[in-house]
Amino acid sequence: MYSNLSLGALGLSADFPTAVELAVRHGFGGLDADLDHLAAQGDQAAVREAAAAVSERGLRWGVAGLPVDLTAPATEFATQLANLPDRLTVLTAAGIPSVGTWLRPMHDDLSYRRNWVVHVSRLALVAEVLADAGLRLGLEYVGPKTFWSTERFPFIHSLSEVRELIAETGASNVGVILDAFHWYTAGETAADLVGLRDADIVSVDINDAPADRERDQQLDLDRRLPSSTGVIDLAGFMTGLRDAGYTGPVKVEPFLTTLAEQPIDDVLADVSSRLDAAIG
Amino acid sequence: MYSNLSLGALGLSADFPTAVELAVRHGFGGLDADLDHLAAQGDQAAVREAAAAVSERGLRWGVAGLPVDLTAPATEFATQLANLPDRLTVLTAAGIPSVGTWLRPMHDDLSYRRNWVVHVSRLALVAEVLADAGLRLGLEYVGPKTFWSTERFPFIHSLSEVRELIAETGASNVGVILDAFHWYTAGETAADLVGLRDADIVSVDINDAPADRERDQQLDLDRRLPSSTGVIDLAGFMTGLRDAGYTGPVKVEPFLTTLAEQPIDDVLADVSSRLDAAIG
Amino acid sequence: MYSNLSLGALGLSADFPTAVELAVRHGFGGLDADLDHLAAQGDQAAVREAAAAVSERGLRWGVAGLPVDLTAPATEFATQLANLPDRLTVLTAAGIPSVGTWLRPMHDDLSYRRNWVVHVSRLALVAEVLADAGLRLGLEYVGPKTFWSTERFPFIHSLSEVRELIAETGASNVGVILDAFHWYTAGETAADLVGLRDADIVSVDINDAPADRERDQQLDLDRRLPSSTGVIDLAGFMTGLRDAGYTGPVKVEPFLTTLAEQPIDDVLADVSSRLDAAIG
Amino acid sequence: MYSNLSLGALGLSADFPTAVELAVRHGFGGLDADLDHLAAQGDQAAVREAAAAVSERGLRWGVAGLPVDLTAPATEFATQLANLPDRLTVLTAAGIPSVGTWLRPMHDDLSYRRNWVVHVSRLALVAEVLADAGLRLGLEYVGPKTFWSTERFPFIHSLSEVRELIAETGASNVGVILDAFHWYTAGETAADLVGLRDADIVSVDINDAPADRERDQQLDLDRRLPSSTGVIDLAGFMTGLRDAGYTGPVKVEPFLTTLAEQPIDDVLADVSSRLDAAIG
Repeated sequence: MYSNLSLGALGLSADFPTAVELAVRHGFGGLDADLDHLAAQGDQAAVREAAAAVSERGLRWGVAGLPVDLTAPATEFATQLANLPDRLTVLTAAGIPSVGTWLRPMHDDLSYRRNWVVHVSRLALVAEVLADAGLRLGLEYVGPKTFWSTERFPFIHSLSEVRELIAETGASNVGVILDAFHWYTAGETAADLVGLRDADIVSVDINDAPADRERDQQLDLDRRLPSSTGVIDLAGFMTGLRDAGYTGPVKVEPFLTTLAEQPIDDVLADVSSRLDAAIG
Repeated sequence: MYSNLSLGALGLSADFPTAVELAVRHGFGGLDADLDHLAAQGDQAAVREAAAAVSERGLRWGVAGLPVDLTAPATEFATQLANLPDRLTVLTAAGIPSVGTWLRPMHDDLSYRRNWVVHVSRLALVAEVLADAGLRLGLEYVGPKTFWSTERFPFIHSLSEVRELIAETGASNVGVILDAFHWYTAGETAADLVGLRDADIVSVDINDAPADRERDQQLDLDRRLPSSTGVIDLAGFMTGLRDAGYTGPVKVEPFLTTLAEQPIDDVLADVSSRLDAAIG
Repeated sequence: MYSNLSLGALGLSADFPTAVELAVRHGFGGLDADLDHLAAQGDQAAVREAAAAVSERGLRWGVAGLPVDLTAPATEFATQLANLPDRLTVLTAAGIPSVGTWLRPMHDDLSYRRNWVVHVSRLALVAEVLADAGLRLGLEYVGPKTFWSTERFPFIHSLSEVRELIAETGASNVGVILDAFHWYTAGETAADLVGLRDADIVSVDINDAPADRERDQQLDLDRRLPSSTGVIDLAGFMTGLRDAGYTGPVKVEPFLTTLAEQPIDDVLADVSSRLDAAIG
Repeated sequence: MYSNLSLGALGLSADFPTAVELAVRHGFGGLDADLDHLAAQGDQAAVREAAAAVSERGLRWGVAGLPVDLTAPATEFATQLANLPDRLTVLTAAGIPSVGTWLRPMHDDLSYRRNWVVHVSRLALVAEVLADAGLRLGLEYVGPKTFWSTERFPFIHSLSEVRELIAETGASNVGVILDAFHWYTAGETAADLVGLRDADIVSVDINDAPADRERDQQLDLDRRLPSSTGVIDLAGFMTGLRDAGYTGPVKVEPFLTTLAEQPIDDVLADVSSRLDAAIG
């Protein structure tokens, strides 16, 4: 696995050439692509060239966002799905291997099984279109009870459920996006990671949680940098990834607004060193 | 539909002959059977005779409890299931038409879909054994969020879900047990009752809820007598039952420990009059 | 229900104004729309006017074809789905209430459950788009064993299965297209129609089967006009429709190439009289 | 993997001590247990002693039959399930690690999905009882189209389907029984075995098929000894087992009545040598 610089996930921003410099300077193994920047290069050959320049700096890609809203009304979803092949040409030209999205863990009208049909339906189609383009899809579950219990029907909010969902789609190019924060808030332990293989995991986030709240009171948008409070068993989590033979990107996504107030080089040096320590 | 005297659901007790007298005196249309009392009559002819005596007093039967634990370990469940036909002979001799149980709305280890398989599995078998004996099965869902959100995996806690479960069993002798308290706490309205037919409903409970708590803070074991606080739209609930052409028993189950401290005739006169007012 | 003239289903053709005249002359209650003819009228007001002219002749509409291939590759399906709202404007302007398609009853690669996921997925989306336009969808199952047994994995080929599929989509605007030939070849009887309501049935075909073949040897494309051989229990089939309170179109689809060799008025007089005799 | 002597599968019989001698004489690696013989030894200590004697001859056990009928009426199934723990004591005392049964690949009344619910239901319970005793369960699918197409609703008749079924039970002690004859008649190839691991396979049969019939005309009970006609790609099948790291028993089950007419030592020498050649 390799550390991945995702400025967006840190609440930071920079133009793409600067992001590349920052990633190199702070020793990241990869960074998130800037799709607008890539698309602006011109035709596919130009995109390939721009991507090659990044690769030559020793950087790999993080996961791009899936440009389809799985919960949109059917007509809107159909339009997004029909447009998806075109949207993917930049990604394939740049060599970005996978896209990801998260699963909304509740619904006010659809029971678990009705919502399941909606998700399987749409994911099966999305996965087939992505497979045609040689791309993988990562699905992130969201663990906090303060989130999944807020509407009438809780939905997928654990690793075992997202794996059931992936199996049901019948697609071989869909895997999970693991986040230590969701793993912890879902009440999962190292035992839940046993049996995972590299092919099952598309991307990984590591974070910590505030120490002054119980697990079931944790809030999705109030997290800490990895290994800062020790609430989350990061060692156990990383051991699970190593046992799975995971080879993909690892980033942090702490939703800490204070990061934007600090010198960016200080923040990235700290983040990179935390990622390196975790990856080992 | 008819008012049903269930002393147990009121937190009261009396020997069965006394219960029959109380039911008649306070104008109930039916009462819960005392299976031990019936079994103690001797052979099936004696049970039939005892049941006929109740019937001659103008009383019908409420729903008996299902003598099978749907969530027991497999070996224990298998033994209970194998013994079920014998356990049913008293019920069939007495002419009791249906048994009921409730569904635990969460699980700490089984995801929704894994728990679904367990429930469908066991209910399909139980329903087939009951059908052989000419009995129906009623399933009660439990609505309060303070209950279903307390373990890692919420499970069936709404009318739509219990109807999905019944459909999946493929059994035609399984229906729902409706409780106004669960209907309210599940966030359901009169619209959720549309389309129900008499055959879909096995039994009904009516209760009210304390006025000093929000819906999502209501507690399963803290209820009020019907039409005492007005928190629950009992009129809308009863209209739904009438539109369904419901013909079965209606009882109250308030979990009010104070009832046992009052004179039993005062309590039953009040309960009977509340049931009559609701049934109309 | 009403008799419906479908020249295509008879292997005949005529321009639309002629078809209307033929339908009126032979006493049909409705006819299939000619979507190209309607679209060629111009804007929606023109389509409405053309449809009104048909309505004034006392004719109702049959079911139009669904312009989406449920088994197309995902990208193709997505494009068809995205284009569907536009394709439906002629139908809604003309007041055509429903579209239909049939279900391929086998697959060489997809197991029953994998094919089920594909069908539920796509039907859920199609049904939602149709519902937005106020249209219903009819699904026809195909009964002959000589068809469903020809690949590795048989799929939906009976009424009970198509009803399970419809239930799983969760859509309230999807129903079944019944064909007496499929009902017979699927080994179904009048008992299988019990419980159907008008809302469950979108369209009906009646046909007979050759007398010199066993049920399991019947071929999908070798049928007879209704009540010509008596192989199929048409009386039982029609009783089922009447008990369901069916109000929609009834047509014949005999796949008899010989019809095109006879004078069209002779054919239509015969067909209309067979339909009237069946409808009663 | 090891060759397993199953006299019953060869249409032969012998008392158990003789069977042990035959297995040793002809170089088999294991043999089927004779449960009546073992039970007749007396208490569990006596069974353990008898089993130890077999083990000392260098023999391992084949799979025993599951003493539960998965398709029995519910009451009968419940009784068999309740009695199962007692029935298993001989097996566990003897150290027999697994039991097996086959899946009936069609039904005249239950649709695929209804039959699926029945099978998942019952297998989940059986697997839990077996797991409590430390036993695994093997499920054999039956491939010939001349079998699965003979009733209204085909059911599981392929490897992919039986694996879907096992996944749905959620049990970790259930695997597949592979038979080269079913693998061939189901239209499967070496590609279908890719991804199998030792833990997925409980037992294996190898057979060949008559050369004068097409695949879809093959009959379940008319088979040939392995490598006698070459119709079945035995080499590809065995490569799949080796790639899976399979460690369990391999036997033949040719349903050849002629074997009983030949000298038993001739038959077993031939069978053993065919098994050894295949296992390699």
